[in-house]
Amino acid sequence: MTMEAHTLGLVEAARAIRDGRLDGAAYRAALVERIRRIDPEIRAFTCIADPGDAATTAGPLAGIPVAVKDIFATSGLPTTNGSPIYADRIPDADAWVVERLRSLGATVIGKTVTTEFAWRHPGPTRNPWNTAHTPGGSSSGSAAAVAAGLAPLALGSQTFGSVIRPAAFCGVVGLKPSYGAIPRTGVHALAPSLDHVGVFTRSVGDAAFALYLLAAVSDTDPHGRPLPGFTLDGGLAPLPAPRLAFVKTSLWDAADDSQKALTEAAAARFRDAGGTVEAFALPDSFAGMWEAGRIILACEASAIFAPLAERHPDLVSAVLKELIAEGAAIAAPAYVDALRLQTRLRRELATVLDGFDAILTLPAAGAAPEGLAYTGNPAFCVPWTFLGTPAVNLPAGLHDGLPLGIQLVGRYRDDLRLLRVAAWCEEILDHRTAPSLAAGP
Amino acid sequence: MTMEAHTLGLVEAARAIRDGRLDGAAYRAALVERIRRIDPEIRAFTCIADPGDAATTAGPLAGIPVAVKDIFATSGLPTTNGSPIYADRIPDADAWVVERLRSLGATVIGKTVTTEFAWRHPGPTRNPWNTAHTPGGSSSGSAAAVAAGLAPLALGSQTFGSVIRPAAFCGVVGLKPSYGAIPRTGVHALAPSLDHVGVFTRSVGDAAFALYLLAAVSDTDPHGRPLPGFTLDGGLAPLPAPRLAFVKTSLWDAADDSQKALTEAAAARFRDAGGTVEAFALPDSFAGMWEAGRIILACEASAIFAPLAERHPDLVSAVLKELIAEGAAIAAPAYVDALRLQTRLRRELATVLDGFDAILTLPAAGAAPEGLAYTGNPAFCVPWTFLGTPAVNLPAGLHDGLPLGIQLVGRYRDDLRLLRVAAWCEEILDHRTAPSLAAGP
Repeated sequence: MTMEAHTLGLVEAARAIRDGRLDGAAYRAALVERIRRIDPEIRAFTCIADPGDAATTAGPLAGIPVAVKDIFATSGLPTTNGSPIYADRIPDADAWVVERLRSLGATVIGKTVTTEFAWRHPGPTRNPWNTAHTPGGSSSGSAAAVAAGLAPLALGSQTFGSVIRPAAFCGVVGLKPSYGAIPRTGVHALAPSLDHVGVFTRSVGDAAFALYLLAAVSDTDPHGRPLPGFTLDGGLAPLPAPRLAFVKTSLWDAADDSQKALTEAAAARFRDAGGTVEAFALPDSFAGMWEAGRIILACEASAIFAPLAERHPDLVSAVLKELIAEGAAIAAPAYVDALRLQTRLRRELATVLDGFDAILTLPAAGAAPEGLAYTGNPAFCVPWTFLGTPAVNLPAGLHDGLPLGIQLVGRYRDDLRLLRVAAWCEEILDHRTAPSLAAGP
Repeated sequence: MTMEAHTLGLVEAARAIRDGRLDGAAYRAALVERIRRIDPEIRAFTCIADPGDAATTAGPLAGIPVAVKDIFATSGLPTTNGSPIYADRIPDADAWVVERLRSLGATVIGKTVTTEFAWRHPGPTRNPWNTAHTPGGSSSGSAAAVAAGLAPLALGSQTFGSVIRPAAFCGVVGLKPSYGAIPRTGVHALAPSLDHVGVFTRSVGDAAFALYLLAAVSDTDPHGRPLPGFTLDGGLAPLPAPRLAFVKTSLWDAADDSQKALTEAAAARFRDAGGTVEAFALPDSFAGMWEAGRIILACEASAIFAPLAERHPDLVSAVLKELIAEGAAIAAPAYVDALRLQTRLRRELATVLDGFDAILTLPAAGAAPEGLAYTGNPAFCVPWTFLGTPAVNLPAGLHDGLPLGIQLVGRYRDDLRLLRVAAWCEEILDHRTAPSLAAGP
């Protein structure tokens, strides 16, 4: 095959297959070959699917191989949830979104490493930019797989910062759409009031295309709704000269200087290009988001995992047991209050942002920390998960050879506007890089 | 005026006003006059609105006076929530559903007695059939007002059994539609995961007309959705020969013999008329509904009312304080589990009821208890509030001069089918009575 499979974006590959310039089976085979070569070093995948899986050849995603986080059920393929308890589990049915991908013509190329149940206990994945560093979590393998050119699209999930943070650490586009936009049926829950399905791609247009195809209303998860029209050829129209609220939050001082400098530089470039970037502080009422988010996470996770930890005390990590205990010690009315704050602030944010197209903020404290034990601080993402707003990580630079990103946040259920803003910012930054992999071509 | 105002049903009055056979202002004046005469004995109302309020003369409810439970905010009219804390409160804005009623041409005739915050501490309302008995609660005044011919339509709310039970005790039709069908914005919350807005009328067709007009999707309460088409002249088509699941639940033995006998007799009449009535037991998984419902109620009410009880310890009843303490003692994961059970059983019920059009069950243990201190046992209604299914009380007989009803329950979000079943049952039972009021004409 002459096209370099690992450099193709999602839309690019889908068009090439549709137009007969690329053979789906050969594309997949090239990616599988690359996985076999590179992945022993990166360890993004827990298993590779049988090519026999790749039967469908019709649909807008015909021939597109997708990497799927291992908390998404896949029929006939191991789904471990990153836990030894499920080491031998092979589901009978696909998660809703996996079934949807297959119905659109895509194939599952393999399952990717997740931290244990998408909480903190890490897996073996390494950052493709520097294997001594974490790729971030919990969607560790999905972010690393897209960064390493092992798949043009990967599914992830975010409860605190599990899409945006690894996307920033791995230098790829991460999209956490509005709460509920992609149905979660068949995805192992961590905290249902916070859990989002998201995607990793190489460009904003690719992420928009994926969301356009995957956003839906499911009977059992009725928050979703489709995006307005999007065509493979029309692509995503950048929103010219967007008005950005530069929100630093109380965490700004906790960020690395390199991350702060890069974000300020990006703001300056957006201004130079005709955008508006104004410093903006959220009202004081939003200060309780982190504590309330933590309460929701701990209480819901405790209800979900306590029975499991009781049945398998030796197979559950210490950090998950801590979370279970934390939730069990919280009185129910405090949890109810946290949910009520969430509802109230979700509503308030729309008013607060009047006059802005999106928020510009940090996706993480800085570049990926060294070591694999700690997947990084998710606090920079918590507000936007708590509020259910769509969020995008946009790769924006490098520091000591590791990627840095910026985070753009939109209004709840106005994912399209956010993506159009992100597409404009992407053009201005014009930052397209890929890690040079020792084992790669 | 020649028409007897207090005997008119909602649809009947709306048609008469539209066709010029009834003058809206005169209709309202006649009802206000009747309230002034009868209500000192019944005590259904907390206040009567100024007639200047009755300005609108267009719309499908033009000239219709509506009695509104006092936990619904009404601009310019006292809204006490049944609590001395709010004795002097006059809201600036209407609750969503009150604003909607006004926009349809209706007027608020007055506010009706509620128990304290729609929980158990009773108000002064007496049962129009026998003033030594409770009208039931928490929508005490609204049920009594419709029973006494003081309004053709009254708004109520149900968290456990606060529409169906007082409707049964007062011998009127009570409709608790599907969870979220009528937006709750501006209605004081007791337990948001269980709170429903409902209506009291004199017939099933009247209730269907009200729901048709009031069911909606509100931005801030997105569960609602409109009913399929309904016209003032077309009315509600009874569903012929419905298939009824006769569900007794574990509470059957706790019901009065008179209530059991009446319900069995109604079932026999439905069978004789060509309907199907089959004894049906809910699967064992449903046995946890009462406990889970209680947990949800206590936890949510505790979060809502604890700050109030702290600020006004002397103005909150002992039963509300008990509820606050009960919720505060529950660990958050138990509450999360209760909500998860609710979600799961809501989904399961649809499958369980396959082949049936509706459930036939008891609305209460029997006729209204003597005295005003105890508004009756809501346990017979808890499952259907917990499950969010639409439910109707249909007056079906008298015992010792007090009304008895049957409860019909439909599928979540299939309110129309339930109402059509209820309309058929109403025709078969052909039970139309009104209390003979000492002070009445």
